[in-house]
Amino acid sequence: MPDDQTDPVAAMMAADEASRALGIDVVEHGPGWARARMTVRPDMVNGHELAHGGLIFTLADTAFACACNSWGPLTVAAGAEISFLAPARLGDVLDADARARTRAGRTGIYDVTVRRGDQVIAEFRGRSSELRT
Amino acid sequence: MPDDQTDPVAAMMAADEASRALGIDVVEHGPGWARARMTVRPDMVNGHELAHGGLIFTLADTAFACACNSWGPLTVAAGAEISFLAPARLGDVLDADARARTRAGRTGIYDVTVRRGDQVIAEFRGRSSELRT
Amino acid sequence: MPDDQTDPVAAMMAADEASRALGIDVVEHGPGWARARMTVRPDMVNGHELAHGGLIFTLADTAFACACNSWGPLTVAAGAEISFLAPARLGDVLDADARARTRAGRTGIYDVTVRRGDQVIAEFRGRSSELRT
Amino acid sequence: MPDDQTDPVAAMMAADEASRALGIDVVEHGPGWARARMTVRPDMVNGHELAHGGLIFTLADTAFACACNSWGPLTVAAGAEISFLAPARLGDVLDADARARTRAGRTGIYDVTVRRGDQVIAEFRGRSSELRT
Repeated sequence: MPDDQTDPVAAMMAADEASRALGIDVVEHGPGWARARMTVRPDMVNGHELAHGGLIFTLADTAFACACNSWGPLTVAAGAEISFLAPARLGDVLDADARARTRAGRTGIYDVTVRRGDQVIAEFRGRSSELRT
Repeated sequence: MPDDQTDPVAAMMAADEASRALGIDVVEHGPGWARARMTVRPDMVNGHELAHGGLIFTLADTAFACACNSWGPLTVAAGAEISFLAPARLGDVLDADARARTRAGRTGIYDVTVRRGDQVIAEFRGRSSELRT
Repeated sequence: MPDDQTDPVAAMMAADEASRALGIDVVEHGPGWARARMTVRPDMVNGHELAHGGLIFTLADTAFACACNSWGPLTVAAGAEISFLAPARLGDVLDADARARTRAGRTGIYDVTVRRGDQVIAEFRGRSSELRT
Repeated sequence: MPDDQTDPVAAMMAADEASRALGIDVVEHGPGWARARMTVRPDMVNGHELAHGGLIFTLADTAFACACNSWGPLTVAAGAEISFLAPARLGDVLDADARARTRAGRTGIYDVTVRRGDQVIAEFRGRSSELRT
């Protein structure tokens, strides 16, 4: 990865205490896309003995944040939609692949697929809003 | 709250390590509704110095899980949509109020509003699916 | 209803050729809410002999447009989400009740429930954006 | 296109009075994908002199129905989400391209992009449910 001075994603992730605390790692990124990874830990399991859907969302949301901030201007999530397609369990390694779908003015639509190996765990779609500066 | 023997929400939350790790507290609940609370800690802040949207979602998702499991049968989140309306910051105390909107067969629609005091931080809508037993 | 001179909803609906062509009638409205009605005609049925989901969405969207424009400033739909909970059939009379949930800056969240009598057919959530003038 | 005897999409569209009434034409389709086209007519314009968002949704929903029924088994829309990115106007020719994103059990996620020429008008994501037979 480029260093923090020149790379808006690296600079953002360096300050992202929430992703760090969850062990979320941005393994690759480029203009309009990013891949983030998280392992389901004992403190991420919910009352049904499955990964808490909120943390699967958080993984996808971090990948989305990296993809939508990769262009440079400060960009935030306006909203998102997620469908949970298969459960994830303790010890699973999850990959979230985010990719820009459409950009129109200051709005963007990004798709994020969360997988365990080849199996799709969740499909996420985020709406981004570039801040006025 | 009723005890774990008789209350499906208490039993579920007793096993929910993810919500416990995030300090999410289910302060009240009843048939079809729940209120959960979370304080934004230093390990919940993202690269924009704001509460990570994923953790705001997680708070809402926990309230939703309590509301949709309050009826008894084991029920999971099929998906959800969230709109982020105002940022939350370090130290903010957030309340998520979940309420059943519609139940049709094994599907349910639940609305969750996340507030800091009187201000709405996020609006979440969850789709639940009751498992066949 | 108030007349077109003073009522932004009446003025908007007077120009809404799409709703007129579909027989959508705004039966009541007020600040932040509206009720619209549509009868499922032979030209609204799809290949599964059910009301086309797009037209159920259109009914809800019209009710949403009335509710979000009821305050005065010109407001458009930024997006929406719909869950189809039960089918509607030829001849069914459908009512869509729209209600403001949250307004924050120029953004609004509105909930619309579509019913046939007491049965919920669909739940719609719209995001509105007030135009700058 | 294959004929109605063998092609589930052709058979479905032959019975779809709603799409016919709106002049929606399925111009191409194959396994998991479809392209539908609609011209914005005078009876499709709303009170803001723009194509009614509900009819843009209906175009996307028809393309989605073709894509998700292309595999054979009878499949219905469980829900959908749409973001309106640019207005469409009287006389515009709109193309909706639907494509399967993920299939898991009886659930499917399909993405539909609505364009006027090269410009994206709307992004739609549909959730399908295959009926038990």
